[in-house]
Amino acid sequence: MLRKPSPADWRHVVKLDPDKPLPRSDLRAIARSGTDALIIGGTQGITRAKVGRLLTGLWQAPVPVLIEVSAPESLLPGADGYLIPVPLNSPDPYWLMGAHIEALRRFGGRVPWERVFAEGYIMMNPDSAAARRVGVREAPAEADVRAYVRLAAGLWRLPIIYLEYSGRLGDPRQVAQVRNVLRRIPAGTGETAWPRFFYGGGIADAAAAGRMAAVAHTIVVGNAIYQPDGLERLHATVRAVAESRRPPSR
Amino acid sequence: MLRKPSPADWRHVVKLDPDKPLPRSDLRAIARSGTDALIIGGTQGITRAKVGRLLTGLWQAPVPVLIEVSAPESLLPGADGYLIPVPLNSPDPYWLMGAHIEALRRFGGRVPWERVFAEGYIMMNPDSAAARRVGVREAPAEADVRAYVRLAAGLWRLPIIYLEYSGRLGDPRQVAQVRNVLRRIPAGTGETAWPRFFYGGGIADAAAAGRMAAVAHTIVVGNAIYQPDGLERLHATVRAVAESRRPPSR
Repeated sequence: MLRKPSPADWRHVVKLDPDKPLPRSDLRAIARSGTDALIIGGTQGITRAKVGRLLTGLWQAPVPVLIEVSAPESLLPGADGYLIPVPLNSPDPYWLMGAHIEALRRFGGRVPWERVFAEGYIMMNPDSAAARRVGVREAPAEADVRAYVRLAAGLWRLPIIYLEYSGRLGDPRQVAQVRNVLRRIPAGTGETAWPRFFYGGGIADAAAAGRMAAVAHTIVVGNAIYQPDGLERLHATVRAVAESRRPPSR
Repeated sequence: MLRKPSPADWRHVVKLDPDKPLPRSDLRAIARSGTDALIIGGTQGITRAKVGRLLTGLWQAPVPVLIEVSAPESLLPGADGYLIPVPLNSPDPYWLMGAHIEALRRFGGRVPWERVFAEGYIMMNPDSAAARRVGVREAPAEADVRAYVRLAAGLWRLPIIYLEYSGRLGDPRQVAQVRNVLRRIPAGTGETAWPRFFYGGGIADAAAAGRMAAVAHTIVVGNAIYQPDGLERLHATVRAVAESRRPPSR
């Protein structure tokens, strides 16, 4: 581990939930599936021990392993990088900024900034555990989604914009619209060429993976790997992304 | 006008208040004083007419003219660039984000992003009009200032961090400390090489200008130009910055 992660190179990533343990052999297969990065992230039942167990199980992974820090319990050393969610449509300033300030007051001097990437989350599914946690009660209107994207990418310059449908497959038209908003915001230069556009939610097969990989820079496969035929599904999504056309360049 | 502004090149800028009209000859002298950029910004009594008058008066300026958009009234076309304050230590999410979302809902499709720069403001003087406006009731503690800088520069990647003492000369030790925090956050690449560190407040003579130019990337001269000997004071600060040592590089 400890290779420097570069989100700009990722087309397909897997999100692993510390609260859903997998056999060591499955972890090894997931790490070698052809995905571009492994993200340790979840909302419910997160403990330091569970995050540590998953991190250890991925020790030999041939791709970067990142922790998505959605709670202080998941802040463990030893990952290749750290993704920091910024829930843009949360009505609660604590989740938008206060929690980050709290953590920075404690750990600010020790943050490995070159390995840290903020994710501007837009939570499209108010029924998901993550949305309930940060107080999102309804899906944002299309005009609001556009405004959040412009704020996060144009004004704040977050390196990642993450449209999260959590367990549901999103509306491809709306996903493409976000992509179009981003095309009008000039990219930065350097390792991330911000903003990188992540799509997550409901990617359970090759068709869904190919469809979303054609409109987002990076697709996130999560729940699918916990189904009985999870490894087959995962391999199908990896193949679909490799065969998909890339979204239009800027 | 309409040259692309590049904050990374600025060492000395002048902030002009639309609510304090100046003779056309003074505006011309300020524009040709050797300062690197002119910022139209204020808090009280801002109207579209006053901002427009100042913008017109600076039409022939040999340096970029930017509007600091602290209210919808100051959103006029025709400036070389736009600075968008993000008051980091405001307790009110409306000023932190809500006002920006409101404006982006209306104007989001027409924003010239390559000319727009967010400023992460830290307001050190609770008695200033700007601080009162956004609900800042006390100066932030040093640990909080460090956390705000890390949030804005490291996590959000705002292109400008602005330590604002509003009319008072700041504590140089505290200004240097902010600078030291920034040195540990890797710079981006490209036009702004974020984060650029602005200092503002109480720069009324050569000594203050030289002192602050040695610890901040860019110093902002404001009130001094409205004093009876304002032009002399301004020229003294420009000379002092030219002769000052630069702050340590990263």
